[in-house]
Amino acid sequence: MKPVKNFASDNNTGVHPEVLKAINEANIGYTLAYGDDPYTERAARKFREHFGADIQAYFVFNGTGANVLGLKTITDSFHAVVCPATAHINTDEGGAPERFTGCKLITILALDGKLKVEPIKKELHALGNQHHNQPRVISITQSTELGTVYTLKEIRELADFAHENRMLLHMDGARIANAAASLNVSLKETTVDCGVDILSFGGTKNGMMFGEAVVFFGRQPAENFKYIRKQGMQLMSKMRFLGAQFEALLSNDLWLKNARNANQMAQLLAAGLAKVPQIRITQKVEANAVFAIIPAQYVPALQAQYYFYIWNEATSEARLMTAFDTTEADVLDFVKLVKETVSC
Amino acid sequence: MKPVKNFASDNNTGVHPEVLKAINEANIGYTLAYGDDPYTERAARKFREHFGADIQAYFVFNGTGANVLGLKTITDSFHAVVCPATAHINTDEGGAPERFTGCKLITILALDGKLKVEPIKKELHALGNQHHNQPRVISITQSTELGTVYTLKEIRELADFAHENRMLLHMDGARIANAAASLNVSLKETTVDCGVDILSFGGTKNGMMFGEAVVFFGRQPAENFKYIRKQGMQLMSKMRFLGAQFEALLSNDLWLKNARNANQMAQLLAAGLAKVPQIRITQKVEANAVFAIIPAQYVPALQAQYYFYIWNEATSEARLMTAFDTTEADVLDFVKLVKETVSC
Amino acid sequence: MKPVKNFASDNNTGVHPEVLKAINEANIGYTLAYGDDPYTERAARKFREHFGADIQAYFVFNGTGANVLGLKTITDSFHAVVCPATAHINTDEGGAPERFTGCKLITILALDGKLKVEPIKKELHALGNQHHNQPRVISITQSTELGTVYTLKEIRELADFAHENRMLLHMDGARIANAAASLNVSLKETTVDCGVDILSFGGTKNGMMFGEAVVFFGRQPAENFKYIRKQGMQLMSKMRFLGAQFEALLSNDLWLKNARNANQMAQLLAAGLAKVPQIRITQKVEANAVFAIIPAQYVPALQAQYYFYIWNEATSEARLMTAFDTTEADVLDFVKLVKETVSC
Amino acid sequence: MKPVKNFASDNNTGVHPEVLKAINEANIGYTLAYGDDPYTERAARKFREHFGADIQAYFVFNGTGANVLGLKTITDSFHAVVCPATAHINTDEGGAPERFTGCKLITILALDGKLKVEPIKKELHALGNQHHNQPRVISITQSTELGTVYTLKEIRELADFAHENRMLLHMDGARIANAAASLNVSLKETTVDCGVDILSFGGTKNGMMFGEAVVFFGRQPAENFKYIRKQGMQLMSKMRFLGAQFEALLSNDLWLKNARNANQMAQLLAAGLAKVPQIRITQKVEANAVFAIIPAQYVPALQAQYYFYIWNEATSEARLMTAFDTTEADVLDFVKLVKETVSC
Repeated sequence: MKPVKNFASDNNTGVHPEVLKAINEANIGYTLAYGDDPYTERAARKFREHFGADIQAYFVFNGTGANVLGLKTITDSFHAVVCPATAHINTDEGGAPERFTGCKLITILALDGKLKVEPIKKELHALGNQHHNQPRVISITQSTELGTVYTLKEIRELADFAHENRMLLHMDGARIANAAASLNVSLKETTVDCGVDILSFGGTKNGMMFGEAVVFFGRQPAENFKYIRKQGMQLMSKMRFLGAQFEALLSNDLWLKNARNANQMAQLLAAGLAKVPQIRITQKVEANAVFAIIPAQYVPALQAQYYFYIWNEATSEARLMTAFDTTEADVLDFVKLVKETVSC
Repeated sequence: MKPVKNFASDNNTGVHPEVLKAINEANIGYTLAYGDDPYTERAARKFREHFGADIQAYFVFNGTGANVLGLKTITDSFHAVVCPATAHINTDEGGAPERFTGCKLITILALDGKLKVEPIKKELHALGNQHHNQPRVISITQSTELGTVYTLKEIRELADFAHENRMLLHMDGARIANAAASLNVSLKETTVDCGVDILSFGGTKNGMMFGEAVVFFGRQPAENFKYIRKQGMQLMSKMRFLGAQFEALLSNDLWLKNARNANQMAQLLAAGLAKVPQIRITQKVEANAVFAIIPAQYVPALQAQYYFYIWNEATSEARLMTAFDTTEADVLDFVKLVKETVSC
Repeated sequence: MKPVKNFASDNNTGVHPEVLKAINEANIGYTLAYGDDPYTERAARKFREHFGADIQAYFVFNGTGANVLGLKTITDSFHAVVCPATAHINTDEGGAPERFTGCKLITILALDGKLKVEPIKKELHALGNQHHNQPRVISITQSTELGTVYTLKEIRELADFAHENRMLLHMDGARIANAAASLNVSLKETTVDCGVDILSFGGTKNGMMFGEAVVFFGRQPAENFKYIRKQGMQLMSKMRFLGAQFEALLSNDLWLKNARNANQMAQLLAAGLAKVPQIRITQKVEANAVFAIIPAQYVPALQAQYYFYIWNEATSEARLMTAFDTTEADVLDFVKLVKETVSC
Repeated sequence: MKPVKNFASDNNTGVHPEVLKAINEANIGYTLAYGDDPYTERAARKFREHFGADIQAYFVFNGTGANVLGLKTITDSFHAVVCPATAHINTDEGGAPERFTGCKLITILALDGKLKVEPIKKELHALGNQHHNQPRVISITQSTELGTVYTLKEIRELADFAHENRMLLHMDGARIANAAASLNVSLKETTVDCGVDILSFGGTKNGMMFGEAVVFFGRQPAENFKYIRKQGMQLMSKMRFLGAQFEALLSNDLWLKNARNANQMAQLLAAGLAKVPQIRITQKVEANAVFAIIPAQYVPALQAQYYFYIWNEATSEARLMTAFDTTEADVLDFVKLVKETVSC
């Protein structure tokens, strides 16, 4: 059997007790289905509190749904979405973005997971040429799939570039809470204030049972999203149980506390591993991921007790994720295990 | 505010306490994501107990997802799906079936919601003609959208006809439990034993928070479903919370008790309404729905206390749904209200 | 071997000599590909001469391409297209409209092939309801698949109704020339002047080798069509050979002469058949089709000499199409054959 | 006005006189539409003569149609197609492959346009993983978009590797004739004999007005192609005019003579340019393309007389295409112009 705690992914966790409590408390009486209920309305209000009065937030089941349906709303089938090669929409969504939007993904190599303006420029040669998909969206992930975090300035540059070229900036925020915590800014400051047009807001990895939100920041029409969500098979019937979770997560700074804990545990983990000479940290640790080369001979023994994924078999680079419920004891015990293993 | 109890839909309910208990109990420790966990495995085992050892069951978020991804697995884009005009896939899924499978829906008028063999025959003229979508699947809903239930013989005839013509029989079982309870047969007897090839097994309307299963009965390959589910945005990361619900629903006859209660309350409701001369029951009451013409002048007063939907504005035909938690007191109180209202 | 002349379809013909001459004359030297050539430009000019200065015409290979790509340009995937059940887009395009636009077709029974406003009204209940495809386009065929022709007033009523409900009017004009000839009006009068928003202009059935045009009448953006055409696999590389055909067809009233001949031959044919007591004409003969019930026992003998299709096996209703090159001799000979056959 | 002859593309040409003659001769009498005519049958026979008795050839309008519909026939939407980054399906088909097949394109950098086995291997890590598109097809272009030609051995290695891994080998043969001429082998030897499973056979660039064929080599079912072609909007109604062209092209070695001329003119052109010190040939000249760096200051003057495209603005690398009707005089005159221009 796989060990109880692991560093495999922040979705190997359960549900935060406050969120589960909200679910239990929502199980009272009847409410109308499909979002016409007070829980969903209160959750939407929470989103407006965090992001501004003129935003629109829609709730969906999962992260792939949030990304794909969000992108579908702002593209036509002949468009292209520019993203880093490491983007989740490119690597881990089973081709759903292409399949459901019809768009081509134009992928750009980004060794730290962060897209820059310069390499996007040369993809714009296609604009106006009938033979080519028309670049319409720049999509970035915050925090990135490599555990790095865009600065506000970096986001703003991408947003400005996008808007100057009649494109939109999409943010995959599966771990937006970890990014905001890392930057020590509000959710609003790292998104709409930087010019982001549309956000996938992640709940699952930050303590919810399931559920993400697609947040439109008013610079493009969101009115069609409800039809796209239904056609995209992401409209939950008993939606109160989704709204209740979001309400809990966005109240009392729960989202922030959860993200902060995960980030801090990643720092602790990185600090511990950095002292092991056989191990080399490969990416800046800015959110809740630690990427590190762990010589292959040590991996099986470590995985047997604390499961994690090897990101790159060729270099034996591991990805270690921390979560809202990772404890200092977990981290220190793992670091101890690493030290013992490599010194055998 | 809308009244606490209503007859609007069986998805206006909350979660059955046993199911919610299972969710809470699953919130312990870490498990691998995406279905590689003991809860999902135990739920799959339950499905094999009920349907047979050689079936395959996959879990998805909702009913539209179950229908659409199931159909996608057994069709190519140039196929057609034959279904009654009242089929949920035709009327209430936002065009997701056409959009995601590419297939055309060939709809057949069926006044009681039940498809018969005869009218399907004349749609087969398209077979082999390159200008026409090729009929490949017959899709029926059990119990139907009109609250009626196919007999085992009727299902078997459709299955035989389908197989004789190289087609498959798909069953939308959003309320399969109500049908089995109504027929007083096992889940297996009303599906695979009658020749059904693929089933959408409904959990949400029978007491779960969310979740449906796509069950393949071994006459066609299911191996690709996992890729289709991911591409269809229906793969849940913390899937244990879906597996735990199914395990609870399929244990200790909970599925049956829930369905039986709903069906019995529909009988009670129909019996009560039948005594009101101004009201006419329009469909056989065989599952958990009562269709009845309620003169339009009475509708607002009734809806104010017990919300329900008008199915057909032209005839003022209402649809009244009962659920796993509808009580005799609810029904009797509503019938009393109806009597008072029509006699004012 | 099938007989040389037949009444099977106006696409069983060859190419009009004037059109073929234009093709031959275009085979001189080099031109840029994909429409950046003088032939295509001159053909576009012809379209502006006929339809007005502010229209945009794009050329594609065939009628299905014209209909599907035109509809795609003015819809999103969650929309619905309302059309008669007999519409070519519903019956004979292999599901391409649903597949490529994502839209649902809402089909309305129209015994004479002509859609009326009244039955469309009740389909608008779906407007604003997230569970349903949103009606966005009304699509009519002029002349219809049943050989009837909409009056200008009928078209105007449909256009007005569409625009009042934020919908657009699409016209499948595979035989628009026959309709204009029948109504004795210009191409402009039976389309844009009646409020048509987008037209599939048919060339193939009126004497071209292949080729249709999608004509946008300025009330909706056409700028994206070029990307949609490419993605829709309908961009011809040596497009001069398409432009040259259109230039010929739209010059010297060739389109009109061709259509007139076809229509007149249909009248002659209908008049001849009407005198045969065993045969009953079933539709008004307003363009180049004659629908007639021909008792089944006579059909094989007739088909052996002049092939035609049986439209409705149950009633032995035949469809007889005339074309730009049908001659009086053809028609009279066929009528003679019919008389002889039925009197045996 | 653009100059009459150019080196822009082999689709800037007109139609070979023999092909045009066949078109004219096919304009006699009536034939059934949609391929049920003797011209199409004779053309199919020609394909069997060239490729073997057990192949199936279907005719479509253009190259994008041939590639996309061929790929659609052998894939499901969750598959991936592995191809060089320079593949026409990746760079110049407006996203039609992704849009119509649903597949992801996995692109591999190939500086000479030729895919090798080694870099494909590491893409197979996705096999069996539900989060990733499943590699199903390797697609190569023969001759390549860079004017190079795969050897028979290279093709065989790719085919073997594909088949060992349950994949298929697709060949985009828009210029297959040029490749066969270059290798001095038959069409069969460079395709099915090397293990190619499905071929897009190019007609347009080798002297036809329009038209390509999708050829299935019997290792996979082709029976569904007719439905896919119709749904893909590529079924021509007056198909005799497509069949007649293919019959002409595949008779009397016309395909080979045309290709040989184009190839020889490319050799002559390359030889001429190679003597100009300011110019550097950048790819092996193995078919009918010459890639050469021409310093940017000379380009406008040259393009004014003989138009061609700049392939890479950054390096001022030009692509010069020859065709079936390029003459020695054209080439020598252009080379002379180059010499004069660079020595000014």
